This record gives sequence, C-alpha cells and structure tokens, in this order.
Amino acid sequence: MLPVDLPDTVRDALLAPLVDHHCHGVRRDDLTRAQFELLITEGGSPAPPGTTHFDTPLGVALRRWCAPLLDLEPHAPPAVYLARRAELGAGEVNRRLLTGAGVVAFLVDDDGPGDGPGDGPGDDVSGIDDVDLLSAAEMGRHGGAAADELVRIERIERDVAESAQAALDYLDSLGEALAARAARAVGLKTVIAGVCGLDLEPGRPSRGSVLAAANRRLAEPKEPATEPVLLRHLLWSAIDVARERGLPLQFHTGFAGSAPDLHRCDPARMSAFVRALQPLGVPVILLHCYPFHRQAAYLAAVYPHVYVDIGLALPHTAAASARVMEELLELTPFHKQLFSSHCRGVAETAYLGALYYRQALGAALRARLGAGEWSVADAARIAHMIGSGNARRVYRL
Amino acid sequence: MLPVDLPDTVRDALLAPLVDHHCHGVRRDDLTRAQFELLITEGGSPAPPGTTHFDTPLGVALRRWCAPLLDLEPHAPPAVYLARRAELGAGEVNRRLLTGAGVVAFLVDDDGPGDGPGDGPGDDVSGIDDVDLLSAAEMGRHGGAAADELVRIERIERDVAESAQAALDYLDSLGEALAARAARAVGLKTVIAGVCGLDLEPGRPSRGSVLAAANRRLAEPKEPATEPVLLRHLLWSAIDVARERGLPLQFHTGFAGSAPDLHRCDPARMSAFVRALQPLGVPVILLHCYPFHRQAAYLAAVYPHVYVDIGLALPHTAAASARVMEELLELTPFHKQLFSSHCRGVAETAYLGALYYRQALGAALRARLGAGEWSVADAARIAHMIGSGNARRVYRL
Amino acid sequence: MLPVDLPDTVRDALLAPLVDHHCHGVRRDDLTRAQFELLITEGGSPAPPGTTHFDTPLGVALRRWCAPLLDLEPHAPPAVYLARRAELGAGEVNRRLLTGAGVVAFLVDDDGPGDGPGDGPGDDVSGIDDVDLLSAAEMGRHGGAAADELVRIERIERDVAESAQAALDYLDSLGEALAARAARAVGLKTVIAGVCGLDLEPGRPSRGSVLAAANRRLAEPKEPATEPVLLRHLLWSAIDVARERGLPLQFHTGFAGSAPDLHRCDPARMSAFVRALQPLGVPVILLHCYPFHRQAAYLAAVYPHVYVDIGLALPHTAAASARVMEELLELTPFHKQLFSSHCRGVAETAYLGALYYRQALGAALRARLGAGEWSVADAARIAHMIGSGNARRVYRL
Repeated sequence: MLPVDLPDTVRDALLAPLVDHHCHGVRRDDLTRAQFELLITEGGSPAPPGTTHFDTPLGVALRRWCAPLLDLEPHAPPAVYLARRAELGAGEVNRRLLTGAGVVAFLVDDDGPGDGPGDGPGDDVSGIDDVDLLSAAEMGRHGGAAADELVRIERIERDVAESAQAALDYLDSLGEALAARAARAVGLKTVIAGVCGLDLEPGRPSRGSVLAAANRRLAEPKEPATEPVLLRHLLWSAIDVARERGLPLQFHTGFAGSAPDLHRCDPARMSAFVRALQPLGVPVILLHCYPFHRQAAYLAAVYPHVYVDIGLALPHTAAASARVMEELLELTPFHKQLFSSHCRGVAETAYLGALYYRQALGAALRARLGAGEWSVADAARIAHMIGSGNARRVYRL
Repeated sequence: MLPVDLPDTVRDALLAPLVDHHCHGVRRDDLTRAQFELLITEGGSPAPPGTTHFDTPLGVALRRWCAPLLDLEPHAPPAVYLARRAELGAGEVNRRLLTGAGVVAFLVDDDGPGDGPGDGPGDDVSGIDDVDLLSAAEMGRHGGAAADELVRIERIERDVAESAQAALDYLDSLGEALAARAARAVGLKTVIAGVCGLDLEPGRPSRGSVLAAANRRLAEPKEPATEPVLLRHLLWSAIDVARERGLPLQFHTGFAGSAPDLHRCDPARMSAFVRALQPLGVPVILLHCYPFHRQAAYLAAVYPHVYVDIGLALPHTAAASARVMEELLELTPFHKQLFSSHCRGVAETAYLGALYYRQALGAALRARLGAGEWSVADAARIAHMIGSGNARRVYRL
Repeated sequence: MLPVDLPDTVRDALLAPLVDHHCHGVRRDDLTRAQFELLITEGGSPAPPGTTHFDTPLGVALRRWCAPLLDLEPHAPPAVYLARRAELGAGEVNRRLLTGAGVVAFLVDDDGPGDGPGDGPGDDVSGIDDVDLLSAAEMGRHGGAAADELVRIERIERDVAESAQAALDYLDSLGEALAARAARAVGLKTVIAGVCGLDLEPGRPSRGSVLAAANRRLAEPKEPATEPVLLRHLLWSAIDVARERGLPLQFHTGFAGSAPDLHRCDPARMSAFVRALQPLGVPVILLHCYPFHRQAAYLAAVYPHVYVDIGLALPHTAAASARVMEELLELTPFHKQLFSSHCRGVAETAYLGALYYRQALGAALRARLGAGEWSVADAARIAHMIGSGNARRVYRL
C-alpha cells in the first residue's frame, strides 16, 4: 500500500493510528445488492439499466482492497464480494473493516434520516433509519477506538421545530438544545451549503426577520428548514455555543449528495463570512472541498482559524486520490490539514478513506524526499500532524 | 504511442475502433497558411505579429504526430508541413488522417456558418461555408467508417426564423423542423452555453413570453437568436423531440470559441436544469467540459441520465492531455464516459483527438495496473466501454 | 535543481538569465522572526499559537534551497536560518539571493503602504513602509541586473486624491499623473480584483457618475478608493495612457493577500472586459491566476492581446509547483507565457520564484522530450520565449 522505499520513520508516521475527525455511522444490518449499491454512490439513484455502481472508482477500489479483508482474492467480482459479505454478517464485516482502518478515534456526525440534502450517500433514499446505523460509541467499539460526537446543527433544529409551540419558544429552545448537545460533543457541524449555498451574508440576521421566519417554519415543522434567514440564525446560534465551549465548527463544502448546486458549495464564497468569524476565535473546518480543495487550501493559508480536509474525495477518487492530495498540499499549511474518511453507510468507506489517505500522503512524501525537497524528519513530523496531531489540538482530544 | 508494457487485452481494447460521438466536418479544399492557422486555434484571430498559432500545444502536436502520416519526419517545420499538405491535396490528407484515427463511426454535428458562438475554431472568421466542409456521409467515406448525424438545434432555429412569417408559424415550424431532422439523426446538440451561459432556469418558459420573444425574433431573422426565453423554448422543444424519439441531448460546456464567458459555461450551473430533466429520461451529454471536467464528472456520478466527455480538450492540451483524462477519471462512473475528438475544420484534430485519447487512457490504465489497483480484465472492459460501448448503448447505434 | 538528463541546449535555455516581469521590492533592514514570518505568508496574521508559518510549502522550501546560499546545510531549522540571516545582515542576504535568482532584468511594482488589498504578503500588517523596501534601481543593483518600473495605478490615485481640491481637479490630475509616471515606466498594473472583483462592466463609466464618485472620494482621501465606478474610471484612464505609450497593463488575478473574495478574482470573469479592450491593442497581462490558471490560459489562447504568468504560485506551491506549471502549459500559447517571481518583502521569494520556475519548466520539458512529443530545438526555443523573449517583446525592453 505504501511506497516501498520510504524511510522507516516516515513509514511509521504514516501507519500510526489516525484521528478520523469526521465520519458517520455504518449500517448494522445485512444489505441487499440494491441497498449496498445506493450506499457506494453519492447520487440517490440506482445505476441506469445494464450498468452498476460497482463500475466506479470506489466500486473497483473496494473489490481491490476490501475483498482481502473478507478472505477473498483482490478484484473479486461484485456478486462474490456481496455473497461473502452476507456470509460473514454485517457485524463481523464492520469489525474487520473499521479495525483495519487503523483509527484511534472516530469523531462521529450524528446525522439521522431527513437531515436535509448535501451530505452522504443515499440520503432519504436507501431507507436508512437511525436504528440502522451504528452509534458513535458502537463505531468506537467495532473499530477498537475511542469515539466522540459531532453535533449536526440542522438535526437539532429539526427536533426543536417539531416540538416548539411558538416562535419565541423555538428560538429559546434552539439555543438550549444546541448548548445541551454541545456539552457532550467535541465539535459542531453544518450542512448549510447543501441548502442555500455558501454565499452567506456575513452578519447576524435581525431578530425581527428571524421571528417572522420562525413563524413560517413552525407551520411546516416536519420539512427541513430552507429559509436562509433561519439557517443563518441557526448558524450564529451554533457559533455562539462553539465560542463559549471552545469547539470548532465543521462546514460541509464541495461535492456530496445530489441536492446542491455544486458551484455554490465552493468555500471561496464563504470568504466574507470567514472574515466575520475571525475575531471570535472559532475554528472553521472545511470538509471535503473537492473540486474546490485549492480554494479551501487558500483560505486555510490566509485565515488563522480555517482548517481543511478532503475526506469524501479520498474513497471516491480512489486510485486517483494521490493527485487530489497533492493539490491540497500545494498551499495548505501543514498545521491546518486534517484527516477524515467521511465514512458513511458502509464500513468499506472508512477502510478505503484511511487506506487512500496513507497511500496518497505516502506518495507525496516519497516524491518530496526523492527530490531532496523535504528532510526525513520534516516528512515524519508533518505526517503525524496531518494524521492526528492537528485534530488533537483543534478538537482538544 | 501506447505505453510499451500494457497487457495484450488492454492494448487491444485501446486500439479497437472508436465511436467518435461528437465531431464536425473538415474542410474539403486546400488551405492557405492563414486559413490553416485559424482552424487550429479556438480564438478567432491571427496570432500577434511575430508569433504563430503553431506555437501552441496543438501546433507542436500536429507537427509531431500528423507529419509522419504525410510521409514527413516528426517535428517537421510548419512551412514544410503545409507544403506537403498542399502537395498531397486536401482529399488525400483527409483520407489519411481520418482513416488513421481508427474510428468505426462518426456522429457529426451539422453546424454551418453563422450558427452562433461558442463552438469550434474559427466560427465566422475563417470563411467556412457549408459547402467547404465534408458532410457526415463524406466524413464516413473518407474515414472508412459509418456516419450519423447530430442535429444542431440552433441551426434549425435559424432556418425556421428566416422562413417563418409570424410568431405562431415560427413556433409550429420549429417543432416540426426539429422532429423532421431528428427522424434521421442519432442525437441533438445545443450550444446555448455560448450564448447565455448554463444558469438555465429549470422550467419551460410561458407561452406568452415565448410568443412575444418570437415576434421580436422575426424582426431580425438573419441574426442568431440571443434571447434566453427563446433559447429555452428551443431547448424544451428539442427535449420533447428527444424524449419522443429516445435521443440524447448534447450540451456544449466549458471552453471553446471566443464568445462565451467561460465561467458561465461551468456545467455545475446546470444542476437545477439537470434535475428538471431527470424524470424525462432524456440522456444529457456534457461535451468538452474543460476546465470544469471535475464538475461534469460529479454530475455524471450523481445523476443517472448525465454523461461526459472531454472531446475538445484532448487535441488542444495534446502532450498534457493525460492529466486532464486522469482528472475526469477521478469521479466519472465508467459507464458514463464517452470518447469524442471534437474534430472540426482540419482532419488533424480528428487524428490527434483519437491519438491522445488512446495515449491518455493508456497511461491511466497502466498506472492503475502497475499499482495493482485494477485487474487486467477490468482495465480492458472499461477501455471498451469508454471507447465505444457506452456510445453504442446511449445512441442506440 | 534541473532534471539530470536534459539536452545541453535545453539546459542552457533554462539557465539563461530571466526577465522577472513582475516583482516588488524587498526589505532593506534586518527582520525579527515575527516580521519574517508575516512576510512569508499571504495572510496578514501570525500563525495560531503553537504553529509557525515555516510549516508551509514555502517555509520548507526556503530552508531547503535558500539555506545553502547563506552557507547553511539544506533543511536548516528556522531559528538557525534566521540567526544566520541576521549575522550576514539584510544587505548581504539580499545580494546573495537576488543575484542567485539569475535574473537579467527586474520589472518592479512600486507599491507602497496603504495601496489597498489584494497583493502581496503582509499588506498593512507588517509595518512595511516605503523606505523599508528596496527601490527598483536598488533591486537591480543588488541583483546584478537591469531594473524598470511598473506603475501601480491605485497608488497614483491615492496620491492624487490626497492632493486634489475638487472633483474636476482630481480627474485632470489623475490623467496627468498617470501619464507622467508612465513616461518612465515599462508597464502599468492594477489590483482592482482585490477591491471589487473582476466582473468589470466593459464600458467606460459616464462622466457624471465619475464626477459624483470623485466628490465622495475627496471627502475621505486617506482611505483607499473602493467605489467601482471610480476604479473603473481609473482603469480606463490607465488604458488610455497605456494605449498612447504602447505599454501593457498587468492585472492581479487569482490568489494573493487576504482581502478579496477568491472566486471573484477568476480572470474568466473579465471576458467581456477583455473583449472590450481587444480593438485598442493594449496587452493585458494576467498575473498569478492560481487556482484559475487554466481559465487564464484559455483567455491567452483565444484573445491575441492576453498574456499570462503564475508568478506568486511558484514560490508558494514550491515542491508542488511542477503540476501548476504543467496545467498552465495545457492551453497557453508559448508566445503568451511570461516568467515572474512576484518577489515581495524578502529576497527568498525572488530566489525561489526563479528556482521553481526553472525546475517546473525543466520537468515539463523533460517529460515532453522523453515521450517524443517535442523536439529538442522546440524545447530550447520555447524555454527562451517564456523565460525572457516574450517579456522583451511585450514590454519592448
């Protein structure tokens, strides 16, 4: 998996346990082929007749790399792979793959069904229910790792909207619920990009406009919130909580899911918002970012409170992930980059996320060492920073 | 041309005849140097004094790869190349280059002069007239291949505008003409991106607004249509025809020509429009896409009816095309990618399009095989899919 | 530094003296670590507690490549590097690094403090004052090279605003001052992208709107100008001068500094403006461009008066700069690309800009020669064009 000619210290640094600072639960139950296929695509639809979602970079990669963990030959055909998966059972498969990822701590987004568009495969389409997904604690147990929770703020909002009686009640409950959930979490997360894009007005919305929007919201509490003014209020409420508790705020950016307009998820569009947050000292963590990872790297380079990863891009670009990693490394300060697998739905994504991370960073380090650009000591130190050190510092693990 | 160490089955798959699912006719007549230079640039202007359009990636590439087909040494100087071209005559040159491309079927866009901006070199500048370009049938005969037609819908519109007497007449004739032309074509094509960008409102324009625009249109029937409401009506009329006849609809996106604002040709901007088309079952084929090919790949990954190629980028990025191909492969499902040369004006572009396609995909496959990422069987199968299989399925050839 | 297996003529062409067509002065005085760190980041802030701006691609690169010029081992630790820098003194360090860059002529942007956002590290934050920076003539003397001046038009505007008494006076003085400064310069430069983005309306603003804006402007002459109408007037005044004197106009585009919204600095957004300039014959030179260098290359390919470089991206992407260079080469005509270091603040950036330029272009040429894509003669000729020939032609040096 790693280049053969890496110095031992660099190899050790790459193979050291990772902090996966952003992932989701995986299915606890056995899956049909149709269910499995929907969980390995970012789209919400079956492949067209006569085709299969296995014919994708991710599909080929899991036959290559996950098959051996299930005691199969590399490149096993999809039907063989799924039959063996069923034979072993979801519990055993999850244990093998999550443990195989070599992760020391999972930070788990507690998203459930109906949490809105823009994040993770198969939202609303694959019949994922809360009870179907391993909880954060279970992810840790299956993976032989610690586990902590991330608060998906849109989910808090939905719960509050469903129970609140009036707009004032809604606003008060929102702040309280965010604070209560944040008290046992290591970070907050928003998927606002997938609902209204990242051209966020930098200021707080006025209380009057929020109250009016809250009234409209309570008329349809079962639907996800979509009004920008309300989502911005939610965001600022989360920022207040994050600031108070010293927690970072994760932003989903770039590709993921089928709902958003991709170009409006370019993190460069957040520039004014990012500047508004700068004095508050709340770390802003840009997730995924692809294909805008160079823009994200730029933000991390010029704003002291901005961090980046390319989570979801690693398992999805698979054999091509080394170049994506290289592009992220063009401008990102080494103390600003984090590892995540963005695992969700099936444990294969956790395993492949970690594998391609190590492989891609290993290739980048080998290239720099081979060209005499970096010292061995720098390469090892930077691999530790990106793999776990930066996350420990930012999330205070 | 291909990497030397490819397994035989993979090499055979790469060298198998291609379906060129989007190209144009080439000039049938002998060309002056000034004419030739204008046909190898996407801009519409001569190179600045003291410079030449041969000093481009495409210009160097054709001296390298096309010169030997004209019995010259590789890297022949431009003057030598053009003298030999004249000596052989356009007919012989076209036969050698089109046959050399190794294409089994050309799908030919029947664009003529004045079809509006945004597609192909030298629009309106190099004196291209209908009669100067080989027809689809002639392209097939010169290239030893089958040939089918694509309907450029903006051309139909222009013809209808020139003959219609009144707005109602115009609207009726438009639908009839599209249906009549589509009856002998394998697909439709639009260059709307180059006129009003790809931020298309997803719905059909109202009949009232279309009638009003049609009246304005008929006041200046010789000019290309530019009103978005009219172009959207044209688009929906084409969609109706495509749906009825089971034909795909090609969208020019990304770079090409000098008229459009490049950033407005980003296919990500079509997301809402693409979603509106999803229930209709009309395949949407994104052409060229560069430098937004990653965005296009994302759309192909999440929407079951979206397909991509990087046609024009292959001959124009030439020696650098392998990386562009690699980037397209990052996310594109293998059943969603197509080959095209986007040949136009000179047969060199057909030959180079095919050559760089094979070379770039060959390099990508070699890399995956060398790293153990893909099996030989997968590599050969996927090369067949992209080179011809997907096009046969989508265009029902 | 260069690939070992390059033919001699290509190596000689790469090592030939460069024209650095866009740089800034460097500090003449000795620097504290805090000052130095602010000059090696494009952001305006110190690195977060516990981190350092040396942990960036540029930071590692200068320890690798500049340390030996200061008689240190490659990869010297930051503290050792800065101690040796202080020991030698700024004058000696500047001489070694500027001479080491192998530049035959520096074209120097005469920006001073308060020239507005969007260009160069540490604007307004590192206490740079005019007197702290080497002048153009001094840059030449320290670097053993010729030196010429570029007129930063926003600086002229500020000087005029501070002294003008009334709007009419302001307008007249602006034209006169631009003409006077241009009389001893080789080009003009604008940083309008960093103030109001590059979605510039293509036409001249009306005299009435300019006069009204000038009146508002004179109420706060100490602040940088921010009204688009006034900046567009400034731009057109500069274009008039450039046209009259046959001078090119440089546009800062893409990344740099922390003020602009990065996506609004995409040069593709200038398309309409670029077309408006085409009949005037004023060369438009797109600086930096990253991460929109492919868009910039497209503009250079289709518009005869557009030129590009990736100045700032070379020292900042450092070990990863070869791929950025490769991407620029995908579409840029070889007579349209220029070299610049975008050196500013510390002479390390001049040295690294030249070093990574030669290294990146060398790698690209080696790849093309190795694949048989280019002839040796073409490779050497093109290296000369990009390194100095194009700049000599465009700037009439």
